[in-house]
Amino acid sequence: MDGMAPHFVRPNVRAMHGYTPGEQPGMGERVVKLNTNENPFPPSPKVMQAIREIEAEALRRYPNPTADSFRDAAAKVLGVEPDMILAGNGSDDILTIVTRTFIPPGGILAYPHPTYSLYSVLAQLEDAKTIGVPWEGDWQLPVQGLLDAKAQAIYLANPNAPSGTVLPPSVIGAFASEYKGLLLIDEAYVDFADTNCLALVEKHANVVISRTLSKAYGLAGLRFGYAVAQPQVIAEMMKVKDSYNCDAISIAAATAAIQDQEYAKMTWAHVRGERQRVTEELTKLGFDVIPSHANFVLAHVPGGDGGAMYRKLKSMGILVRHFDTAQLKHYIRISIGSNTENNALLIGVRDLLADMKAA
Amino acid sequence: MDGMAPHFVRPNVRAMHGYTPGEQPGMGERVVKLNTNENPFPPSPKVMQAIREIEAEALRRYPNPTADSFRDAAAKVLGVEPDMILAGNGSDDILTIVTRTFIPPGGILAYPHPTYSLYSVLAQLEDAKTIGVPWEGDWQLPVQGLLDAKAQAIYLANPNAPSGTVLPPSVIGAFASEYKGLLLIDEAYVDFADTNCLALVEKHANVVISRTLSKAYGLAGLRFGYAVAQPQVIAEMMKVKDSYNCDAISIAAATAAIQDQEYAKMTWAHVRGERQRVTEELTKLGFDVIPSHANFVLAHVPGGDGGAMYRKLKSMGILVRHFDTAQLKHYIRISIGSNTENNALLIGVRDLLADMKAA
Repeated sequence: MDGMAPHFVRPNVRAMHGYTPGEQPGMGERVVKLNTNENPFPPSPKVMQAIREIEAEALRRYPNPTADSFRDAAAKVLGVEPDMILAGNGSDDILTIVTRTFIPPGGILAYPHPTYSLYSVLAQLEDAKTIGVPWEGDWQLPVQGLLDAKAQAIYLANPNAPSGTVLPPSVIGAFASEYKGLLLIDEAYVDFADTNCLALVEKHANVVISRTLSKAYGLAGLRFGYAVAQPQVIAEMMKVKDSYNCDAISIAAATAAIQDQEYAKMTWAHVRGERQRVTEELTKLGFDVIPSHANFVLAHVPGGDGGAMYRKLKSMGILVRHFDTAQLKHYIRISIGSNTENNALLIGVRDLLADMKAA
Repeated sequence: MDGMAPHFVRPNVRAMHGYTPGEQPGMGERVVKLNTNENPFPPSPKVMQAIREIEAEALRRYPNPTADSFRDAAAKVLGVEPDMILAGNGSDDILTIVTRTFIPPGGILAYPHPTYSLYSVLAQLEDAKTIGVPWEGDWQLPVQGLLDAKAQAIYLANPNAPSGTVLPPSVIGAFASEYKGLLLIDEAYVDFADTNCLALVEKHANVVISRTLSKAYGLAGLRFGYAVAQPQVIAEMMKVKDSYNCDAISIAAATAAIQDQEYAKMTWAHVRGERQRVTEELTKLGFDVIPSHANFVLAHVPGGDGGAMYRKLKSMGILVRHFDTAQLKHYIRISIGSNTENNALLIGVRDLLADMKAA
């Protein structure tokens, strides 16, 4: 790849491969899609209504640069002040803004490993180093290893991806007191868990919480996320974001989405119920399923060949995610879908395992 | 500002003020808004139709990461291949991606000065230096000064903002042969001009062209822009962009917009006609108007106090742009609006000047 790149490209970019998103089959393809953690439910009808009501004049003009209608609505839902919220073009935009605000070129980003693979890509783009500190034992926080990394920033996905495991706020709060750099708590999946770290922001100036509407509000296609932090921290991140990083339609749609908590909570309850069912059924089939607090499960495949299971399921029209790394190759990660999709998965897995036994 | 910033913020960010967007009055305010170069026409009816036809399922899922439907449509309109196009969340996103792909921390960004003030903000964010080389004489390219800057990248707005002046493609092509770094040609306003530099991309690997749908397609609120460059250059920029930088709605809307060339060209013809009329009328009133190839004019105010003219017009409900710098303080920049808006401006200016004479 480097051989092709023109000389005027930065060396760190030339050396990179970039982030690989999960497979996205075309809208027409008949696939049971359980590979990128979308919500099985579409967005709230109120979101669709807000989109249909967009006026041409709102598109002709520049949007509100700070998405204030969303900030006001989110502040009410979260019980914080609007100036503690920064809106982003997806939580990837929030993660990019955090990286550019707090990590200098040549600096260090640390995170427990394995986790969301985008973190290391963001650090590479910043020409920063990454230190992945292995999780301790049963996906517990590797406190000393993280402190020893002497990083400008630590990124902590909670619940973690791809494990679905969660750390209690008390553990993270104690860590935020000890660590003096910037602690990003990536709560992309938090609405499917029983706890969250929002309260830590009041006490800890060095904590930034990142959230997304992609999963919890069925809006992966809209690109909308937000950060919560103390006002003086948000003010610095405001300087780094693109001037108009959220568009007029996504601001209106995201505002409608976060205001319809009743609908969102219905979808979260469904996901939690199905998560328990899928976990139990996979366990019966011989999988070792890590108890998950997210909208997916990481499951150790009977026999240990995660790649083969992934490929066989794919040939049956069922997409799950496989990570071909030393630590994760024995697993597949399965998004929690609708009842019907989960049944298709469970039946597919059962048939595959029966075939393998017969062979 | 620096005193407030927490210690864990990068020094270059702490030291920054950030980009100041033009004033955006609320949708309900009755203002003649000629300060941020929006198109006086709303987007094409086909754009509004594409937005209304968005299905919930397209929002539930992640969007196509590279906006391929737009790339295909734009490639046909522009006569290039789809892999020569990169879609962005507004051309600000394109400019950010270009900066991060080609300018290392500690590197140099050069540009003729004065120009779009975002360029220096982007360089500051990258911890790079900026060299603004004064335009020669009558807004001509300062070739030697730009070469002497030894910059990794040169950003050239053509037409330039805020002057509205344009350089011929032959001059820019000759420069692209001589300069070995990355030459960004920011064509945000090019659809209002008579020439463009698209053909330079075929010959010059170091040329990236940036365009936006904000002005030419009446879609400032949608956030959609694109870059055109050789495929191996686009491939490097792809690594730097956020994984899903454009959302499903904006991709559909932008595709519909660029396919409706007939509508867009009607709006450009209107703007060109009104630009000529406004230029002639302001000249009669004693302004010295720089001949513009964009959808705004930069006009030297009779008496030379641009700030006073800006404030007086604002008190009359007419918003124009004033830049309080040594070079530009004698001018105001006026976006070309609808026939009615331009009349309101001309009448306002005439009354103000009459009052000043009487006083």
